[in-house]
Amino acid sequence: MLPLSLLTTGLRNQRKGEENNQNIAEKMAGISIIFFILSILLSATAEASQCPAIGLPLVRKINELPQDNYGREGLSHITVAGSLMHGMKEVEVWLQTFSPGSHTPIHRHSCEEVFVVLKGSGTLYLASSSHEKHPGKPQEYPIVSNSTFQIPVNDVHQVWNTNENEDLQMLVIISHPPVKVFIYEDWHMPHTAAKLKFPYYWDEQCLQTPPKDEL
Amino acid sequence: MLPLSLLTTGLRNQRKGEENNQNIAEKMAGISIIFFILSILLSATAEASQCPAIGLPLVRKINELPQDNYGREGLSHITVAGSLMHGMKEVEVWLQTFSPGSHTPIHRHSCEEVFVVLKGSGTLYLASSSHEKHPGKPQEYPIVSNSTFQIPVNDVHQVWNTNENEDLQMLVIISHPPVKVFIYEDWHMPHTAAKLKFPYYWDEQCLQTPPKDEL
Repeated sequence: MLPLSLLTTGLRNQRKGEENNQNIAEKMAGISIIFFILSILLSATAEASQCPAIGLPLVRKINELPQDNYGREGLSHITVAGSLMHGMKEVEVWLQTFSPGSHTPIHRHSCEEVFVVLKGSGTLYLASSSHEKHPGKPQEYPIVSNSTFQIPVNDVHQVWNTNENEDLQMLVIISHPPVKVFIYEDWHMPHTAAKLKFPYYWDEQCLQTPPKDEL
Repeated sequence: MLPLSLLTTGLRNQRKGEENNQNIAEKMAGISIIFFILSILLSATAEASQCPAIGLPLVRKINELPQDNYGREGLSHITVAGSLMHGMKEVEVWLQTFSPGSHTPIHRHSCEEVFVVLKGSGTLYLASSSHEKHPGKPQEYPIVSNSTFQIPVNDVHQVWNTNENEDLQMLVIISHPPVKVFIYEDWHMPHTAAKLKFPYYWDEQCLQTPPKDEL
């Protein structure tokens, strides 16, 4: 998108200039077109390295995979085996590390989800599905290293690193990726007001156009 | 099944006895019926503890989950989150440890599969799908701790712990469980001769009757 807007600006500036200065206008248009083409090439290269899907080695070292907080404080997220990154169609695996005090949003999704806690400890907050209009006060479950838990489909939940001294590291497995998440501001927000976040943070770079399937 | 056959044997023995000894026959039948009812109760209790599916704690300590080699030398298998054990419908997670020299069978399945190597090292043998009638010589990929790899759907593969000094431990994730596996005796066995193993070793105890879906 950026190259197109740059080109438009360049062309608009021409019209604002002296109309009889044909040579300058032509040069500017020429420069703009060259810049536009260069930008497309650079953009294509960047996308290829971030969202490869094909051409990756079969066996990948996890600590060499892209790692980012994707704008979420205290998070380190790695897509270990992903839909957009690695061509998975039915399952996706993440490695997530939460620094002390950091947490997921309060959210729900219609896929299955399994957590395997590798390091640290924390708290799972889970509001079992009900016919209430909002999640309500969640149940609290302590989670510890070498434990596992699964989130019932569509149950509203949140995971916190409530341990002040240690990172919480988990492998997270979801079904039918890429994940479509409904986010709640608090536990009393009506289900109907929860905001769809799709593509999710780490899928934004590789999934620009949401597919038209059911959410 | 055992209680029913015991009852049948009991009844058959009666008929072989003296037919005029009505009292003894009646007593034997009575004992058999009591034994039958007791066996059903005992059997139901045993199944409840092995294949709980419901009533389990939400957060489970992995080292407290059932662990077995299921008749396979050198293997330790734990179903971390399973279809039959824990009610998963779309994904299943295993923790598997292979002692030095041990390995999976040569096999294929029509589900997705992701491995996360937690400890040790080994070799993945993978015969990419082709129009040949048999898998043929596989490619070899070294696998190491903190690496990940995925098996393309229906590709014939085998994982070996080729490290003489250390266990190979992996988290294994599959889609649409319970897994249906076609096993090959060697890499030159025709695809059509591969033998379906369903239910698979660790599902045998909880899945007596194969569902009639597509394999």
